[in-house]
Amino acid sequence: MGWTRKDLLTIRELEPAEILTLIDTAASLEEIAGREIKKVPALRGKTVVNLFYENSTRTRTSFEIAGKWLSADVINFAASGSSAAKGESFVDTARNIAAMSPNVVVVRHSSSGAPALLARELSCAIVNAGDGAHEHPTQALLDLLTIRNKKGHFEGLSVAIVGDIAHSRVARSNIHGMKKLGMTVTVAGPPTLIPPYAQELGCKVSYRLEDAIRDVDVIMMLRLQQERMHAGLIPSLREYSRYWGLTLDRLAAHARPDVLIMHPGPVNRGVELSPEVADGPYSVILDQVAKGVAVRMAVLLLLAGGRSGEEK
Amino acid sequence: MGWTRKDLLTIRELEPAEILTLIDTAASLEEIAGREIKKVPALRGKTVVNLFYENSTRTRTSFEIAGKWLSADVINFAASGSSAAKGESFVDTARNIAAMSPNVVVVRHSSSGAPALLARELSCAIVNAGDGAHEHPTQALLDLLTIRNKKGHFEGLSVAIVGDIAHSRVARSNIHGMKKLGMTVTVAGPPTLIPPYAQELGCKVSYRLEDAIRDVDVIMMLRLQQERMHAGLIPSLREYSRYWGLTLDRLAAHARPDVLIMHPGPVNRGVELSPEVADGPYSVILDQVAKGVAVRMAVLLLLAGGRSGEEK
Amino acid sequence: MGWTRKDLLTIRELEPAEILTLIDTAASLEEIAGREIKKVPALRGKTVVNLFYENSTRTRTSFEIAGKWLSADVINFAASGSSAAKGESFVDTARNIAAMSPNVVVVRHSSSGAPALLARELSCAIVNAGDGAHEHPTQALLDLLTIRNKKGHFEGLSVAIVGDIAHSRVARSNIHGMKKLGMTVTVAGPPTLIPPYAQELGCKVSYRLEDAIRDVDVIMMLRLQQERMHAGLIPSLREYSRYWGLTLDRLAAHARPDVLIMHPGPVNRGVELSPEVADGPYSVILDQVAKGVAVRMAVLLLLAGGRSGEEK
Repeated sequence: MGWTRKDLLTIRELEPAEILTLIDTAASLEEIAGREIKKVPALRGKTVVNLFYENSTRTRTSFEIAGKWLSADVINFAASGSSAAKGESFVDTARNIAAMSPNVVVVRHSSSGAPALLARELSCAIVNAGDGAHEHPTQALLDLLTIRNKKGHFEGLSVAIVGDIAHSRVARSNIHGMKKLGMTVTVAGPPTLIPPYAQELGCKVSYRLEDAIRDVDVIMMLRLQQERMHAGLIPSLREYSRYWGLTLDRLAAHARPDVLIMHPGPVNRGVELSPEVADGPYSVILDQVAKGVAVRMAVLLLLAGGRSGEEK
Repeated sequence: MGWTRKDLLTIRELEPAEILTLIDTAASLEEIAGREIKKVPALRGKTVVNLFYENSTRTRTSFEIAGKWLSADVINFAASGSSAAKGESFVDTARNIAAMSPNVVVVRHSSSGAPALLARELSCAIVNAGDGAHEHPTQALLDLLTIRNKKGHFEGLSVAIVGDIAHSRVARSNIHGMKKLGMTVTVAGPPTLIPPYAQELGCKVSYRLEDAIRDVDVIMMLRLQQERMHAGLIPSLREYSRYWGLTLDRLAAHARPDVLIMHPGPVNRGVELSPEVADGPYSVILDQVAKGVAVRMAVLLLLAGGRSGEEK
Repeated sequence: MGWTRKDLLTIRELEPAEILTLIDTAASLEEIAGREIKKVPALRGKTVVNLFYENSTRTRTSFEIAGKWLSADVINFAASGSSAAKGESFVDTARNIAAMSPNVVVVRHSSSGAPALLARELSCAIVNAGDGAHEHPTQALLDLLTIRNKKGHFEGLSVAIVGDIAHSRVARSNIHGMKKLGMTVTVAGPPTLIPPYAQELGCKVSYRLEDAIRDVDVIMMLRLQQERMHAGLIPSLREYSRYWGLTLDRLAAHARPDVLIMHPGPVNRGVELSPEVADGPYSVILDQVAKGVAVRMAVLLLLAGGRSGEEK
């Protein structure tokens, strides 16, 4: 299936075939990272702007490397220190950037829906690089690519997503993608961190780590933001870790021997993951990062390169 | 007319023919923004350093895109976090950058005359990207290009520049350029914000918005810095807006139907411009931004590319 | 001699022939700065990441220009505002970057040994761009290249390094390099700023500026960090300057007429160097900066380009 959308805003709105187009394109680009010359001319003369309203050097770097390997011009527009600091509205800042004729604007913003707002306002392609607690579609795509790479398929796989589901855009994008591709999803965490939408989306819900990880193909551990403790949603990091921290003992006792351990990073070592698990043989955390570059190349290529016939 | 200067420091010192050379060059480069491949090899192997002592992501981005579309290497040197923070003098920092053999250094600084100081000290080309309340020549050039694009000529046009004239490098550069090109300029604002130099430069002065905007071809609204209120130069933003804010009603009552509304950005919506005016049919604010990239391409090209015969 | 190391971590561990390979390579690349087209394709398709945990716009810019002139893709990864700020460990951050397949990671860190730790953990090449009070090998290499350029050789030259030896990675890397290349080194400063290792490394020690600078070929003045005063290691900047500041009078009275004055920058004018000395005929401070780009090109080329035969 080809790609016809102007933007990549959510996994929720995509057809399964569109998700597979993105993943297949990423898979075909993965080998560039291993080349002697990591450079293809696909996006030469295209301009990509990273418009980040939240700090995320890692995601920004992943998009920047992806763009540069495709020969695009990549511009980092940090919102702090910009007109935003002078009180200019988000949309005004974005319109100004759009007036400079970029092909793609990659947006990270703390407000859910901010990228969708830009997509309606601007004629260039918009990529959602994370908006509030809403979606983070390129993260879900790299997670899916990592899973398929290890398991060979999606249909029928079972996944446990563990931790702060309620505040996680990573969880939400993954749940949409996994359900569309025929996977079974269990979300697990303290009741205060499980959102009402989980069951509506067809997830099983578990309030006990040991139950959630039993017999699943994939365990995706989420980062626990320390703010949750201050907000009274968890009693303490220590308490959280005792019940929800994934350790080698728990894995050995309850999980399958070929389970994959995933984490979107950055890991709180000793909180949601013990160091032995994070660095252990089950962990594919660094595979996820590597696949992130391939996924972002695919997204930029499909959005900026695929529409070349339509432009004047 | 060719271009023979080493630097672009002010509009004041330029001959009318030099201003037209810059504008004509920019006009010829404008179409690059609409190309499938936004890239020309003109400055391949040239190095442009953005040396910004004031935050201005927008202007910096405009120069960065301009440089990259011309195939230059562009380096952003943010003065915060640099040796400047360790107490090194501005000239020492600049000399150090110059020792790395850039072709062009683009400087923004809060002190009037800082770029001129560098131009005397360094052998590379210097572009003034805004110095204190002195000049902002590329802004004036993009404003002039926008006006010519809409009106077809300069001679005989009338412009009202409205707001904080006294502290505006945008106003000063524009007044010099407009007068040199045969335009009539009225400056308007509260008496505390009108500088003594306005009449010396041949501007009419008006203390009433309704009078200033009557029958002019162009209205250029300036951003009101909130600091002016704290300094006691205006009573309040609300008061300022009541007398000096441009609204659709005021436009309909007093301005010509084909007037252009300009603003250097970022706009204080509801202060100097009502949202309806900022986004309305008279507004060319986003044209200005788009033309900014073309103007900066022209400046970099004339300074770094035009002297190629002279270099070893 | 060829280059076989994966990383550049210290001068201490290098053979004299390796140091000369680096310097000779840098010397051969110096002419690129004077070219009409400052660009060679040597590292096209290679990715260099600048991972800076300490602010140093100048050194980062030098590496960035070096990489771009060699046609590498250069990514700046500022640790502030990154996952590091979210509590991720240094090694985790670096592993994540490494998972994106860079060819070279250039590291600056306040902890001695941080680059060596990464070199063991990661398969990509690591360049130490300054680690704590330990080493700053590219600074020593550019200093050595500057000296050879002016004096024509190393063997038998005498150098005085003056100031805060104890806390200076510049001093330490230079002492190792100079001793290996047959030079005589005197370190001089207040007793509180002379480290115990100086004599072990074969340096002479002097506690009087006038004695230290007598009859040497090179005087290398170090930057005095103001923190030393707060720590009680020197009584005051004024006092320090009176005894240890290099002035034209002192030079005329005690130094050779062909002495070279060096400084790693940024200079505290009026503290360790009088302005007349910093800008005077003996000073090669800006030559050092210019040679810095050539040295960093050499390092990147030998680490990322020289191993091309080994890669798949």
